[in-house]
This record gives sequence, C-alpha cells and structure tokens, in this order.
Amino acid sequence: MNYTTTEVRVRYSETDQMSFVHHSNYFKYFELARLEWLNFLGISYSQIEESGVLMPVFRASAEYIKPLFFEESFKITVSLMDPPKATLKFQYLVINSKNIIVCRGETVLAFLSKKTMRPIRCPKILKEKFN
Amino acid sequence: MNYTTTEVRVRYSETDQMSFVHHSNYFKYFELARLEWLNFLGISYSQIEESGVLMPVFRASAEYIKPLFFEESFKITVSLMDPPKATLKFQYLVINSKNIIVCRGETVLAFLSKKTMRPIRCPKILKEKFN
Amino acid sequence: MNYTTTEVRVRYSETDQMSFVHHSNYFKYFELARLEWLNFLGISYSQIEESGVLMPVFRASAEYIKPLFFEESFKITVSLMDPPKATLKFQYLVINSKNIIVCRGETVLAFLSKKTMRPIRCPKILKEKFN
Amino acid sequence: MNYTTTEVRVRYSETDQMSFVHHSNYFKYFELARLEWLNFLGISYSQIEESGVLMPVFRASAEYIKPLFFEESFKITVSLMDPPKATLKFQYLVINSKNIIVCRGETVLAFLSKKTMRPIRCPKILKEKFN
Repeated sequence: MNYTTTEVRVRYSETDQMSFVHHSNYFKYFELARLEWLNFLGISYSQIEESGVLMPVFRASAEYIKPLFFEESFKITVSLMDPPKATLKFQYLVINSKNIIVCRGETVLAFLSKKTMRPIRCPKILKEKFN
Repeated sequence: MNYTTTEVRVRYSETDQMSFVHHSNYFKYFELARLEWLNFLGISYSQIEESGVLMPVFRASAEYIKPLFFEESFKITVSLMDPPKATLKFQYLVINSKNIIVCRGETVLAFLSKKTMRPIRCPKILKEKFN
Repeated sequence: MNYTTTEVRVRYSETDQMSFVHHSNYFKYFELARLEWLNFLGISYSQIEESGVLMPVFRASAEYIKPLFFEESFKITVSLMDPPKATLKFQYLVINSKNIIVCRGETVLAFLSKKTMRPIRCPKILKEKFN
Repeated sequence: MNYTTTEVRVRYSETDQMSFVHHSNYFKYFELARLEWLNFLGISYSQIEESGVLMPVFRASAEYIKPLFFEESFKITVSLMDPPKATLKFQYLVINSKNIIVCRGETVLAFLSKKTMRPIRCPKILKEKFN
C-alpha cells in the first residue's frame, strides 16, 4: 500500500545557511505525506485526535542523498510497511522534479490515549482502511 | 516595568540561505523573552493554560535593523507598555553582544477562554504581578 | 497590482499547543506568497540572489483575526503597495476556505548587495515587471 | 569522548497541538549540542564554513522515549562514536531535569567542499581536536 503526494515546493524559510533544506524539515515533509494520505483515504487526523487518540512518532530516521534547494518541487511517496497493530510503520521516498530520490525515511507511530497518555490499540477506522 | 533575558545564542537551524536569522524567528525570540519574564515573576505560563486561559498574539510587528548571524549571542529586553487590561502590550529590543540593538518589536496579546475560545479578562495572577 | 496564491494547507508542525497555527508561521506564509507571485511573473528569486542581490525583510507586521487550525486550507492575496523604489512594500490577506480574512499583514523589503551587505537599488528586472 | 550541554528550555513554539515538543525539533537540539561542543573545544563552526567546508547531515535517527513539555529544561549528552574519517558519527541522549533519558539519537555528518559540493576529507582542525 502506498500513496504519492501532490507536488510540494521548498519554502525559503526551510533552507539554512548551507543554502539547502535543513535536514529537520524532511520529518515535516514525511508528516505532511502521511496525513495527506489519511485524508485521501477519507480519514481526518483531526477527527482521530478529537476521538481521544494521539499518534506521536516514536522512531524516525532519514538518509539524505541529495540536497533540495529553494524553489525546487518534489513529491513524497509514502508506504505502510505492515498491517496496523500496536504501531504504524511508514517508509518515505522524497523524489525531486527530475525523478531522482533525494531522501529516504522511516517513521514508526504509536497510539496514545489523549487522557491517560498511555499506549492504546490502533483505532478501528485506521485498521479498516489499511487492511 | 521591564526585564532582560539571559543570553540566547543563534541556532544553525534559525538561519536561512541569506546566511542570517530568518525574520520569522524573532517572533519566537520575543515569545521566549516574555515567557522567561513570567517565569522570573513566579508565574508559570503552563499553569495559566491549565487554568483554562490562552494568551494568543493578536498583533505583532518587528523592525530589523541589523542581521544576527549563527553563533552570535544576544539578549532581549522586554517591557510591558500599559497596565494589563483586556490585552497585554509588550515591546522588545534584541541586543547583540556588542550592545547594539539589532531588532525592535511589539506584540499585543489577548486572553481567550480555552473552552469557548472567546475573549476574557486578564487573569488576576497576572494583574497582581504587573501592577 | 495583486496576486492570489494557490491553495495552501496548514501543516501539523505549524500548530502549537494552543492547537492552532503559531503566529510566527504567518510570516512564512507571506514569504511564500510573494515568492510565488514573483514566480508567476516569470522571475526566479534564486536568480536574483545569484545575480548578487538579497531581499531581506526589514519591517514586518501582522494582525491575527481568527485562528487557522490543522487541515484547514487557505489562500493568500498579496498586493504591492507602491512602485518599487529603495524598498518594496507588500500587503497580505490570509483567507480561509469559508472566504473569511483570518490575518492581515505587511512586510517591507530592502535590496542588499550580497557582497557588501549594503543597500542597493531595486534590480531592473523587478522594476520592469512591477511597473 | 563526550560532552554535556548547558541547560536548554523547551520553547513554546517548539510544541505542537499534541502539547509536547514536535519530533522534528530534536534534530535541532542534536545540532545545537554538537555545535556547542565544537565551540567548547575552541572550534568555531562558522570558521569551518568560511574555510570552504560544509558539514551536512547525511543520516539521522531518533527514538522518542518520553515527551518533553513546554517549560521543561533538559540537557543533551553528545558522544563521538569513532575517530573522524570521511564522516563523523555522533550519538545523543536528551536528559530531562529528573535525570530521565527522554530521547536517543544519532547523526552522521559528511564533509563537503562548498565550491564543488563534493565530499572531501575531515578538516585537520577537527581531526586534531577529536584524536
């Protein structure tokens, strides 16, 4: 199962004085990609939160292959690695406009009760959509 | 009434490809300054929020006089402009290590009920401290 | 002269614990709007920088009328206030999907020589496009 | 070889609507830690860049154990994993004020020529300090 985002453009404020995108911003791109995917599947992450479930990242990694510069556009391909259980594992490819992979990443998300801040099971709505 | 923060250092991630601090970051510096001041006065902003009061910015401005570069250290002087009423108006001076004012700013904060998201009066704890 | 951006969506990372967009992020939205406009006019800001001209913000202000929440989409209307001279003054309206103005802003940009970091005149390419 | 930073405090703007620090910000904390360490060793990263060497991150990962909330203070312990060669591998522990490890991380940095944007060897100044 995977999804490719609509085109995203590097914002000026995302660069640093090395003159390309600061490495921390790719984790925001990954987040954007998985939330856009949920949306595409008809799931609003806001509604999940309103139902009392938080989905914090509890592991994240990235490998930076080529820099992204201001004004470049790119897409993110996001894949779910396993059927949803206690966690959700996503992999990401950031692909620039020349179709070159510039970054690979992975995040593992947990499910927390907003009230108790303790781990809970994957909400049914997610389970159904991803199975 | 005014307060000067402890020394802050420019973080690499706060620069952009112009090679100095991105202008949006000064609003984070201002915020840091006024919250450090509250702390110094014995007021925890977290406690204010827990009591159901939000203090969003509803007007903000800055004048950028000189750039701040990575590794520079600076302080922020923050002043309360009027006794607290329906809003709080703060002014800021960002002062570099050579004692030069590099940025001036102003923010006006409102008080919102977390529940209704509507304006409310200044919490008593703030009123007492700032009078 | 004015321009309206394509639709932008609030990113999760742009919210803070007040549960709406942090006020500093609107200055990034303004920037995005004016650079998208330049692009629409056939001007690449990267090329301006490569030609040795920086365009830092030297005054910025915003008035926050209503919050923007995660997953909301919005557009920015940007207007140039005067013909380009030593500075460029832009005004912004951030308009949500219900067509309500949620934020007004203004920025004044200067032109700096990348080499000397001193003020210079407006580049000809900008002058021609905006006249 | 390792180093522990001075105390850092969570900034309000670093939280998101989950009401704790957004996971991408830890990579900024890691960066802050390794650059503070260089500084402590008498090496200015600005000077390294001025000498024509960039040190971009080319691999980064983090494991989030406990959230960090606004107003919490923490320290970062940073360790160099191997003697400097073609890359530098750092590990990080983010430790809160109750002395609990809240996040573990790792970054691998490369050395690039600012001119050619191609990999180069570790600058002598770094090699000497870390050996």
